[in-house]
Amino acid sequence: MKAAVLNEFNRELALTEVEDPRIQHPGDVIVRVTGAGVCGSDVHWIEGAFKDVLGAPEFPYVLGHENGGYVEAVGSAVTSLQVGDPVLAHPHITCGLCRACRRNEASFCESLRFPGIDGRTAGGFAELFRTTEHALVKLPPGTDPAPMASLADAGLTAYHAVRRACGDLPADGVAVVIGVGGVGYFALQLLRLFSPARLIAVDRVAEKLRDAETLGADLTLSAGDELVDQVMEATGGTGVDLVMDCVGVAPVPEQSLAMLRRGGVYSALGADTGEACCGTLALTGRELTIKGNLVGTLGELAELAQLAARNRIQLTQTSYPLQDINRALSDLRHGTVRGRAVLVP
Amino acid sequence: MKAAVLNEFNRELALTEVEDPRIQHPGDVIVRVTGAGVCGSDVHWIEGAFKDVLGAPEFPYVLGHENGGYVEAVGSAVTSLQVGDPVLAHPHITCGLCRACRRNEASFCESLRFPGIDGRTAGGFAELFRTTEHALVKLPPGTDPAPMASLADAGLTAYHAVRRACGDLPADGVAVVIGVGGVGYFALQLLRLFSPARLIAVDRVAEKLRDAETLGADLTLSAGDELVDQVMEATGGTGVDLVMDCVGVAPVPEQSLAMLRRGGVYSALGADTGEACCGTLALTGRELTIKGNLVGTLGELAELAQLAARNRIQLTQTSYPLQDINRALSDLRHGTVRGRAVLVP
Amino acid sequence: MKAAVLNEFNRELALTEVEDPRIQHPGDVIVRVTGAGVCGSDVHWIEGAFKDVLGAPEFPYVLGHENGGYVEAVGSAVTSLQVGDPVLAHPHITCGLCRACRRNEASFCESLRFPGIDGRTAGGFAELFRTTEHALVKLPPGTDPAPMASLADAGLTAYHAVRRACGDLPADGVAVVIGVGGVGYFALQLLRLFSPARLIAVDRVAEKLRDAETLGADLTLSAGDELVDQVMEATGGTGVDLVMDCVGVAPVPEQSLAMLRRGGVYSALGADTGEACCGTLALTGRELTIKGNLVGTLGELAELAQLAARNRIQLTQTSYPLQDINRALSDLRHGTVRGRAVLVP
Amino acid sequence: MKAAVLNEFNRELALTEVEDPRIQHPGDVIVRVTGAGVCGSDVHWIEGAFKDVLGAPEFPYVLGHENGGYVEAVGSAVTSLQVGDPVLAHPHITCGLCRACRRNEASFCESLRFPGIDGRTAGGFAELFRTTEHALVKLPPGTDPAPMASLADAGLTAYHAVRRACGDLPADGVAVVIGVGGVGYFALQLLRLFSPARLIAVDRVAEKLRDAETLGADLTLSAGDELVDQVMEATGGTGVDLVMDCVGVAPVPEQSLAMLRRGGVYSALGADTGEACCGTLALTGRELTIKGNLVGTLGELAELAQLAARNRIQLTQTSYPLQDINRALSDLRHGTVRGRAVLVP
Repeated sequence: MKAAVLNEFNRELALTEVEDPRIQHPGDVIVRVTGAGVCGSDVHWIEGAFKDVLGAPEFPYVLGHENGGYVEAVGSAVTSLQVGDPVLAHPHITCGLCRACRRNEASFCESLRFPGIDGRTAGGFAELFRTTEHALVKLPPGTDPAPMASLADAGLTAYHAVRRACGDLPADGVAVVIGVGGVGYFALQLLRLFSPARLIAVDRVAEKLRDAETLGADLTLSAGDELVDQVMEATGGTGVDLVMDCVGVAPVPEQSLAMLRRGGVYSALGADTGEACCGTLALTGRELTIKGNLVGTLGELAELAQLAARNRIQLTQTSYPLQDINRALSDLRHGTVRGRAVLVP
Repeated sequence: MKAAVLNEFNRELALTEVEDPRIQHPGDVIVRVTGAGVCGSDVHWIEGAFKDVLGAPEFPYVLGHENGGYVEAVGSAVTSLQVGDPVLAHPHITCGLCRACRRNEASFCESLRFPGIDGRTAGGFAELFRTTEHALVKLPPGTDPAPMASLADAGLTAYHAVRRACGDLPADGVAVVIGVGGVGYFALQLLRLFSPARLIAVDRVAEKLRDAETLGADLTLSAGDELVDQVMEATGGTGVDLVMDCVGVAPVPEQSLAMLRRGGVYSALGADTGEACCGTLALTGRELTIKGNLVGTLGELAELAQLAARNRIQLTQTSYPLQDINRALSDLRHGTVRGRAVLVP
Repeated sequence: MKAAVLNEFNRELALTEVEDPRIQHPGDVIVRVTGAGVCGSDVHWIEGAFKDVLGAPEFPYVLGHENGGYVEAVGSAVTSLQVGDPVLAHPHITCGLCRACRRNEASFCESLRFPGIDGRTAGGFAELFRTTEHALVKLPPGTDPAPMASLADAGLTAYHAVRRACGDLPADGVAVVIGVGGVGYFALQLLRLFSPARLIAVDRVAEKLRDAETLGADLTLSAGDELVDQVMEATGGTGVDLVMDCVGVAPVPEQSLAMLRRGGVYSALGADTGEACCGTLALTGRELTIKGNLVGTLGELAELAQLAARNRIQLTQTSYPLQDINRALSDLRHGTVRGRAVLVP
Repeated sequence: MKAAVLNEFNRELALTEVEDPRIQHPGDVIVRVTGAGVCGSDVHWIEGAFKDVLGAPEFPYVLGHENGGYVEAVGSAVTSLQVGDPVLAHPHITCGLCRACRRNEASFCESLRFPGIDGRTAGGFAELFRTTEHALVKLPPGTDPAPMASLADAGLTAYHAVRRACGDLPADGVAVVIGVGGVGYFALQLLRLFSPARLIAVDRVAEKLRDAETLGADLTLSAGDELVDQVMEATGGTGVDLVMDCVGVAPVPEQSLAMLRRGGVYSALGADTGEACCGTLALTGRELTIKGNLVGTLGELAELAQLAARNRIQLTQTSYPLQDINRALSDLRHGTVRGRAVLVP
């Protein structure tokens, strides 16, 4: 099959012919990829940003952790899927048996494999992709899985974070979403679905702020040095109940903490070079909470897929043929992609 | 009446004769103080550490925010208290009408007064103390309020934080309490009352670690540079589910974050010079939570007082006559007080 | 002033001249009523349905527990309200000091007064109405309080119940609202604001089902013997996650329990002659939950009022002049009122 | 192997030689049973009480749904278990793939098998027992699984119910456990581990009430007609916050509802002939909650097993050799078993 492989950090991906993945275990499933989301994490990965955390990868490596497509082959123990079924792949392959899995916190699985990220398990920037029955959400018959791909990581991370945050967001409160990119695009819509609170969207790009309005933002603000002052003014000086930071780069964490009201929550969704710092005097005196968010559960992905199937959320994406992967990565680096960049066959 | 007043930052308190407090509003109550806890915050306050946050105080000022005693006089609208009733004073005087009060988050009251802390409202290092009916918890008839004083701030802060943390602490998990002083002493016992999880207590002072064992710690560790390694070893390398930091000074916040397992919670109870810093990559990748805790509600104080009255928690204190307040402060600075330092008439 | 008084059970109300209410306590407030909701409970009350629970009333009695208007006079301790302020009255007058009040469960206040219901405290079917500062929610300047009146009981009960139910309602689940009258009208809209789940509305009256569609129902069903079968069919045989019963009369509780999926919740909002019965075998085997709901908190009323002020919920009412109170009660008995019946001056 | 089989409803079990169970699927595991709890449900099952719910069983049938032992053989896909490992079997065999499984509500699995109960899947009243790797909790090396058997159903049901109830139980509240048999024995201890609230234990048998005191009850009461009055007296007339009904037979549900305070919770753990009935007026007016409880999750079983391994809970049982199964059932019918009845080889 064809795959876009990375041979070395800080290089372009090379479209080459590699061996087809094969069923290795009774629970394995091969998926023919028809949509593979391209994520900011792919850019960071290529730059080597994760190598300290993840260890040295096995080159050549196939990235791609946001995958949808059709079942191509199933292992002998697979009972719930048939060849041809449209599916969405949860980004994690988990054991289902360890303490974390049994506590419904499978993102902390002791045997976690993370295809397209972990440096050893091939991802979906290819024609075929191997995962397990357990990791696949079956879509309703007739669904086109390609536009759903971005749900698997960007959508799921936003869903997980919004569900964890909504209990902290009063109906008469205010939430801010910073960064209306792949993740923030979902965070904004999902907050709107689960809460009538006032929503403020923040981005640098005017077009994204216009999108934010159609997705439910009550107010949009341009990112910049005046952001904290503007948010304070918009809230009569009290600050906001919740900030969802979909960026993760300075000065966003610092600004986020500064704009919280007493008892407010800073929810981090963007993993990057930024740092959240708070003195214990302010942390206790203002009773702040700082929460990191990591992907989500299979149950959450299934709920989200159902919302998309019922058209309760809007999917915006820019498609690129698989061979144009380097163009997609370049557009992403330059911030010019509208919605999610998705590779198609 | 006699009161211990502060005339200037960084000075000793002076025991002088001042005017008696009087009923000013129909809901006011005058309390004859028989127990007034001395807190690390009093030491910081005297050093001027809070002046940036609180503004310039009105000197001479009477400190003391952890007060118990007997009702001496009541305003015309007071219905639930009579002269002679033993009472415990919640540290805050709140309006009961603002958004925060109506949301049961009265610590964020828009008209908050904080006697003995806010620089304008006199505290309890005196013979008499003015507060409101609303802020008083009536103790069962015959109760001696003096030993209960330390519940009003140290106990309440621990109670509030433990109740907020227990949902995050699995029964087969591990919690660490750092600092077995005024607050940590309660945190440890309360964790034991609400959870069968393994508890690790950390302090510098060997005697406090021996106390910790009698209060329910499964393991005690001496504070120091090896702490993170020791906790990792004690947990088979996975780290802990919860750290309750009752210190707030470096390197505790940093060590606390380092010893958390994935999905773990760092709960800050100590307000001091330390700072909690976490990069967005670790915050999201390890899905950490950082939570500040500020005092607690009146309902929580009433629950805690009932637990003490039923002997479900142990109160350890060192008593000092009011005129020895400067000795109490000095002992506190040198870390030689066992349990809570409490001023008695 | 003029008031509609009841002199005996099962009689028409009589519009007569009675003495004006006066400030009796420093925290009292007199409100000039400009909107007073008429509720199914008023009909039951007049029929004597509550006398066993509440004891014999003091006739003549003024009903009316859903009141909005303008501040007419304030007691000496009132600080947050001025004459002329538009206000909405929480139906309860509570002490703010007992265990229930301090636990933010003021509906269980040990000294609860319930004007217009408790048989001793006059309600709002009159020109003036006495309550307390504590029970009043101040509306934004310029707001007309009359259309808000129905929020104080019907809206608040629905809000409280929906907030308590939403945690049990999966995003890909189904909720049923039975009875699109005063309470159900709000329940439907509020479920829509807080959840993207599928909503089914049930009523006998076709016009109310048409209203339900505009309020967010995905499906409407006519009440009747086939209801359980129809709901089962609409859910592929699995049943629903949540039923909000805004009726409380047989056979609704029985039907509600029958249409729940395993793990489902029956939420009772209508207080009437119906009975919820479930064998312990089904209760445990299907892991059902049955939840009663009683009014809501002051914080919830303030949130709801803010949502209405921001036009996030729709208020539909039929106005009657105070002197036509008996016509309003008759229309209510015959089920011909659209939205809430509200008395105006 | 030897097994105790039921050939017909209302007959004694017959100890006969049957074929050994064999690995049929790659994830199957055969367990050599060294402890099999005998439950009230087994008695009911034999009497045909469940046949309407479960359909006609396939006779001869092997009961036994509370099993511990040693791994005897493993399927080809099993990775976490080896022959000889001590294990505890969760009573359910679930698919891990359906909506319920993915929502961590596997008791509602669409493909649920319930060995020893469902009438088609053989249980553990035998020398060997087939289940799946997914359903097994591995015990620490060296643990004797026999005394742990009763955790798998009685303990787990209590654990699940207590964890769900503790959020509703104030620290200064009161909980009642009715029935200090298999389930109640655990409920009492677990409430004690997770809450400092006052605990009242109720049973008919004086010896069980003495046991209850050693397990943490603050007060014990004999079951009978005066129970509600006695509980009211013990709570100063207010009633209790929580009742855990481990019986499920009249008049317990009715008494339980009568003894609740406003806002109280009736938690049903015993599945039998009793019925919980509550009028909508009382349900809403007193804001009561009625909650059924069904077994628990694998994560909960693992937590519970860890608590037992750490000696935080006490296991009391009466052992019977497998061939004396009919005597065990008879003793259970007559209420003379102390703790749990457990079959041993």
